[in-house]
Amino acid sequence: MKISLAQIKVIPGQPSLNFEKIKSFVMEAKNNKVDLIIFPELCVGGSLVGDRYFDIDYINYLASFNSKILELSKDIAIIWGNILIKQSSAPTRKSKKRPYILNTAFFAHDQTYVPRVDGVMAGLSFKKIHANQNYYDEYRYFKNESVSNSDFIFKKDGRDFTICLNFVNGFGAAHKVYKANKTKFHSTDLVINIAASPWVFTNHKLPKLPLLNNNLCTTVYVNAVGLQDSGKNIFVFDGGSFVLNQEGKLIANANDMFLEEHLIVDLNEPVPKIVKQERSKLLTAVLYAIEQFDELMFKKNVKWIIGLSGGLDSTLNAALLTMSLGKDRVLAYNLPSRFNAETTKNNAKQAAEMLGISYKELAIENLIKATKDLFTVPVSVAVEENIHARLRGHLLSTFAQTEGGVICNNANKVEVALGYCTLYGDTIGALSPLGDLTKMQVNELALEVNRVFAKNVIPTNLIARFKGAVPHFVFPPSAELKDKQVDPMKWGYHDWLLNEIILSPTRNLNVFVEDYLNNKLKTSTKKLLSYYGLDKKEAFFADLNWFVSTLHNNSFKRIQMPPIVTLSPQAFGSNLPESQAKIDNYIKVFRD
Amino acid sequence: MKISLAQIKVIPGQPSLNFEKIKSFVMEAKNNKVDLIIFPELCVGGSLVGDRYFDIDYINYLASFNSKILELSKDIAIIWGNILIKQSSAPTRKSKKRPYILNTAFFAHDQTYVPRVDGVMAGLSFKKIHANQNYYDEYRYFKNESVSNSDFIFKKDGRDFTICLNFVNGFGAAHKVYKANKTKFHSTDLVINIAASPWVFTNHKLPKLPLLNNNLCTTVYVNAVGLQDSGKNIFVFDGGSFVLNQEGKLIANANDMFLEEHLIVDLNEPVPKIVKQERSKLLTAVLYAIEQFDELMFKKNVKWIIGLSGGLDSTLNAALLTMSLGKDRVLAYNLPSRFNAETTKNNAKQAAEMLGISYKELAIENLIKATKDLFTVPVSVAVEENIHARLRGHLLSTFAQTEGGVICNNANKVEVALGYCTLYGDTIGALSPLGDLTKMQVNELALEVNRVFAKNVIPTNLIARFKGAVPHFVFPPSAELKDKQVDPMKWGYHDWLLNEIILSPTRNLNVFVEDYLNNKLKTSTKKLLSYYGLDKKEAFFADLNWFVSTLHNNSFKRIQMPPIVTLSPQAFGSNLPESQAKIDNYIKVFRD
Repeated sequence: MKISLAQIKVIPGQPSLNFEKIKSFVMEAKNNKVDLIIFPELCVGGSLVGDRYFDIDYINYLASFNSKILELSKDIAIIWGNILIKQSSAPTRKSKKRPYILNTAFFAHDQTYVPRVDGVMAGLSFKKIHANQNYYDEYRYFKNESVSNSDFIFKKDGRDFTICLNFVNGFGAAHKVYKANKTKFHSTDLVINIAASPWVFTNHKLPKLPLLNNNLCTTVYVNAVGLQDSGKNIFVFDGGSFVLNQEGKLIANANDMFLEEHLIVDLNEPVPKIVKQERSKLLTAVLYAIEQFDELMFKKNVKWIIGLSGGLDSTLNAALLTMSLGKDRVLAYNLPSRFNAETTKNNAKQAAEMLGISYKELAIENLIKATKDLFTVPVSVAVEENIHARLRGHLLSTFAQTEGGVICNNANKVEVALGYCTLYGDTIGALSPLGDLTKMQVNELALEVNRVFAKNVIPTNLIARFKGAVPHFVFPPSAELKDKQVDPMKWGYHDWLLNEIILSPTRNLNVFVEDYLNNKLKTSTKKLLSYYGLDKKEAFFADLNWFVSTLHNNSFKRIQMPPIVTLSPQAFGSNLPESQAKIDNYIKVFRD
Repeated sequence: MKISLAQIKVIPGQPSLNFEKIKSFVMEAKNNKVDLIIFPELCVGGSLVGDRYFDIDYINYLASFNSKILELSKDIAIIWGNILIKQSSAPTRKSKKRPYILNTAFFAHDQTYVPRVDGVMAGLSFKKIHANQNYYDEYRYFKNESVSNSDFIFKKDGRDFTICLNFVNGFGAAHKVYKANKTKFHSTDLVINIAASPWVFTNHKLPKLPLLNNNLCTTVYVNAVGLQDSGKNIFVFDGGSFVLNQEGKLIANANDMFLEEHLIVDLNEPVPKIVKQERSKLLTAVLYAIEQFDELMFKKNVKWIIGLSGGLDSTLNAALLTMSLGKDRVLAYNLPSRFNAETTKNNAKQAAEMLGISYKELAIENLIKATKDLFTVPVSVAVEENIHARLRGHLLSTFAQTEGGVICNNANKVEVALGYCTLYGDTIGALSPLGDLTKMQVNELALEVNRVFAKNVIPTNLIARFKGAVPHFVFPPSAELKDKQVDPMKWGYHDWLLNEIILSPTRNLNVFVEDYLNNKLKTSTKKLLSYYGLDKKEAFFADLNWFVSTLHNNSFKRIQMPPIVTLSPQAFGSNLPESQAKIDNYIKVFRD
């Protein structure tokens, strides 16, 4: 059998475009005498369109494409993901009830839905929705169909092929599918898994899956590429579609680097491909997110305005924007006050020159003075810090409008977590490329960017060098909003601690505390603690209490922050609902 | 039997405080020889704490209060709502799995859990979680227990009382409970419904419920009061606990005006109370939201900074803040530019004087000039508009910091919907009291506020008068950011249209279009359309298309806007997930 894995770029909310793409892939497959072409999950309208799934007009429109794809299946079999409106609760003309829709895999051949072994629901296989997902509110929109799924009987060249059609969702879900179906596979010719699975830095589909695949039939996985957003969170889909043979060996694979690909595989003559990656997946993901966001939201028709202070985060962002969009699309502004060091000013200028982007330095002292003149008494240092930050935000916003641009937000995840930023000052922007990466990850990316450019576009005095587990900066990160200011974060340790708290859905801080007290922490963590003097209990608990309460008390800033490129399994945003309410101090050790 | 309805104010995330309250209510009930005291749903930790429900430390802490409440039940029966950690999937020490918890009603008597008719799960009744809820992500956090609920056998004075314990959730959910249990009520002595039900302007519990109550036993409903937040949405809980007798007649009721109340009812000698409301529920709700938000988040220890432009929204907010917090807590700033009319400036000053609040007028021309000086060519009018708005935002933020204050956001729901605001300018603030009310509702509130004050604290030239369905303003709403500017909204009609689109979860716009084409709209809507010249088809569709696309295209501003006091069944915010992605134009009539 000849199959094709249609790793298409799915545009959320635009079935018209996706359908054209589907059509062209089907044509290409037919030209290549493909028997069966497989598209990803929810490939007609995308996964993330928010509450538009409750709009009867929209879901009717979306569902109307199923018959159009069915029509395309003359002389070829097609599997695609889309919604099915549950007929028993089909919304009526003036229904006030929210409609029930099913996340469905469709299977058509020769303009007919392919029959199932159980004789019902021809052409349909339903995704079982599990609550407590990370990425999507699937349980908000999709209903669990009570009818069980069943294998399909696909007639081809006088033979009956039994095909099992599943959904796979990121993290270890593949494992579940295999475990659940293990006994079945003896009687199945082909297991096909379709997915709409964004990439985050903890999932590694390819290396893990083959190990799990102790089944006895050929297995196919088809994922989408593209960018989709839930408002506050921006997700990128990496593709990585593949075929495993009956022994669980990889026999064909599409790229997992976010690129559209049409992988045609003759199951009798497979040729696995070895894709050599020049760049890390993380760097590829961030660049792709910027590029796609720019295309989807702004049709590549805006300038990207960046406040280039000469610190690590903004310099890295300037480099990433330049790599994604080209140097002509990036306008850097340095808006120093008297607190900005010559080092950072020089850094900013030098980085802009090396990147070849527009660079303007404008002093904000007149605006600061005009603000302070409104007060009869001198303002405090803390007030002045925020005045500086907000006036920069104001000017960047003004430049964005005059230049037809949008603003790049420069926050990293540790700053976002601790609210180390000024609302309406440095919290502004259309997109936060680094808002889901810790400073240590930012540091890592900066090193890689310099390697890619083969020169230090990011000045080395900004990049930490590690002595053991401990990062050391030549020029320590600073907001430069007052004299001799240095960021209060304990770099390395607080990065690690943030992940420990946020990335685990169970956030079991008492476990960490117990491990600390029982001296069971990893050596690298212990080294960091010791470097920062936190091997002393009193200091350790004071710092932990500060970190946890600062994290919580700054959720009010996150409510008003820009969309974040989501690269971890748990970004701030709609992904991580937070209430502002004060909470009892319930961590045991603080209570006792 | 003597029962008491403990309509307590639940503080989200602070079981320690809630437990003290529960204890004092139990003591008072005991002193009054009460047999059974009933607390609301999730009264130990509140409903809205975000993903803290995934934190094993927190849920263990929360669940630890059940044994403490059990202890209180010596010589009295207690019903309370809290979580139960599902034992079969109890989180382990280093579990990475999200814990499963059950939203549970507990029933204890004499320090023992009260037995159920079915002989299992003594003292426990579980809430069935239905997906597609409006307010809470219940399905994200709570598991549906597969074991059915069963009535309780409560032994008192040698008699067995059969008690059915249910949950009721806002909107018509009561109806469902009654329908589902109708046949059972013959064998039940008492049906008790506990709730954690916030108020929105479409639900009216008291007048509706008795009509539904065709059961044959006494029915009790206990709801909480207080304020809880989901980050972007602020909810207020109104109480309104009550008792109906076997004929469905109201025999006792607590206030439904957000006030804590301990209602003790001797079921043999009931005395219904008639509460005369001096203020509308909507006004009470907004005032309560401001007051409670101030208390919960800021311990009544901040000033509230308001940009008082002299327009309707800001003047109303100044009045609401004054009513909620007292005149000494409100600082009004008028920051006019050359575009601001003498009328609005006088309005602002006059309103502040009548309210007795601090009022400062500061010209922003110097800051505008300092901004424009950074450009070599004159900026456009559009750019200058946003410069004005943002500099006001900057100054209000600065004043907030110098005065130890927070900012009141002045947007109304129509502005929020259409993005008729400048990001980081007039979108800023700690709270948006009016962000879920249309301009017509704002207008209504303004009229009522003047009635309450018995003088026109809100100048009458700002308030629309209605000729038929059509609102007329003496001084039409304007952002006053350029000369002769008037808001582009078609007041009255766009207010109505927004509700039509947003309040219905099915947002079936084609129905509206069909009704328009078939001349089936209500007379009041037709009058509005005619007034605005939209009885002409071309104009109608052009306007509708503008409205729908402007609504969608401005979701990027909502992502960065402040928390909104939620008063409708569908506020913007986490309540209404929106993706920024461009969407195919799928409204039939626009396509054809």
